[in-house]
Amino acid sequence: MNLLLLAPEELTDGRATVMGRRARHMIDVLDVEPGATLRAGVVGGRVGTASVIAVGDDLVEVNVELSGSAAQRPRVDLILAIPRPKVLRRVLQTAASIGVGRIDLVNAWRVEKSYFQSPALQDDALREQLWLGCEQGGTTWLPDIEVHARLMSFVDSALDEPDDRVRALLHPHATAGIESAVEPGASGRVAAAIGPEGGWIDRELETFEHREFRTVSLGKSVLRVEAAVAGLLAQIQLLQRLVARANT
Amino acid sequence: MNLLLLAPEELTDGRATVMGRRARHMIDVLDVEPGATLRAGVVGGRVGTASVIAVGDDLVEVNVELSGSAAQRPRVDLILAIPRPKVLRRVLQTAASIGVGRIDLVNAWRVEKSYFQSPALQDDALREQLWLGCEQGGTTWLPDIEVHARLMSFVDSALDEPDDRVRALLHPHATAGIESAVEPGASGRVAAAIGPEGGWIDRELETFEHREFRTVSLGKSVLRVEAAVAGLLAQIQLLQRLVARANT
Repeated sequence: MNLLLLAPEELTDGRATVMGRRARHMIDVLDVEPGATLRAGVVGGRVGTASVIAVGDDLVEVNVELSGSAAQRPRVDLILAIPRPKVLRRVLQTAASIGVGRIDLVNAWRVEKSYFQSPALQDDALREQLWLGCEQGGTTWLPDIEVHARLMSFVDSALDEPDDRVRALLHPHATAGIESAVEPGASGRVAAAIGPEGGWIDRELETFEHREFRTVSLGKSVLRVEAAVAGLLAQIQLLQRLVARANT
Repeated sequence: MNLLLLAPEELTDGRATVMGRRARHMIDVLDVEPGATLRAGVVGGRVGTASVIAVGDDLVEVNVELSGSAAQRPRVDLILAIPRPKVLRRVLQTAASIGVGRIDLVNAWRVEKSYFQSPALQDDALREQLWLGCEQGGTTWLPDIEVHARLMSFVDSALDEPDDRVRALLHPHATAGIESAVEPGASGRVAAAIGPEGGWIDRELETFEHREFRTVSLGKSVLRVEAAVAGLLAQIQLLQRLVARANT
């Protein structure tokens, strides 16, 4: 836990009573005692310092001072074919820790339909993993997340109109890298789509291509979803930095 | 399995008898029958096609034609503080699938000493995970790997003299990115060090800094080892591409 992340409604006059998992982590792992301080932040908001006032059995009371800057919405959104639940948990944590604006979890031909019954896809479970990712990454930007049982209706409703985002679809056999999409002069915002293990089928690829998605690859290798998500987000962040410098 | 990876000694006159895990995967998952073809390659060597000649209970006979180019040694080496065994397995697979020349697994102050007793650190287990990574990534470069129980003697023997590699150490609070290390004009080869969960201690940081390691961060977030390895290797690959283009 590199950041104690609090919901805005947990704070009253700069105080919060932390319970459950976060409290246990603070007590059992971080070994906090009254007087201890740790980095804290409010979902979607600013970061600062939490000072421990009292420690109970399963409860930690903190005084929070927010002095840092507010979270900036990360300039990349993720469209992710639903991976198997165990992988999904790790991927959500990874994505939130690196930083994404929103995540759309989509169905695809090669997504196993049984995944939709998984508890991992329930709202609370999704939010929990993203929360853990924010705690790991030390960021207060908790990504918006939505599950789409139908790829086509998601595409039709969310991607039919162009927006200021460059659209990129990860494909192991693409010859271009993400540097072909994130270039000086553009807004630098990206919508990145990552397919299921086994890849998108041709019809799905066409669907994305019709919506101006460029196919890009990370390199010559075919990567597991977890590595692909971390690798692609890291490359996009790097390019956004380089482009921001080139633009000034 | 995006590549059937064979050891050179498995091939006799272009034929190989595959047994054990790989055979079971080919039979149970890929459902191969005589006549089927799949991508194949030889460790450290060329890629091509394997044609299935016969399928037994726990055995697949293949005819192998190697037509592609030989594996190029990836231009990045990894120095990794030993993570917990479960994470180690995934990290080795990820690193091999993306491509690294060699991996030095090193001890550090915040590496739990019990890890050294783990079966995951035995030669066969390490090689198995790297092999799986190559199968995933579709690459024949099986990284060299070595475990070092003493960080200082590794540093003294392997890093005392400068070589043609830029040396970078990942540190969450570094202000520079990896682009400060991989720049046009240089060889583009990188030795990248990634610390334990909890980070290097100051004395270790100094040790690396005395050997010309530059501290770099991936971005503003503190990442788990798995995400850090994938993210850093992906960023280095991207920069190596950009630098190669700038150099020509």
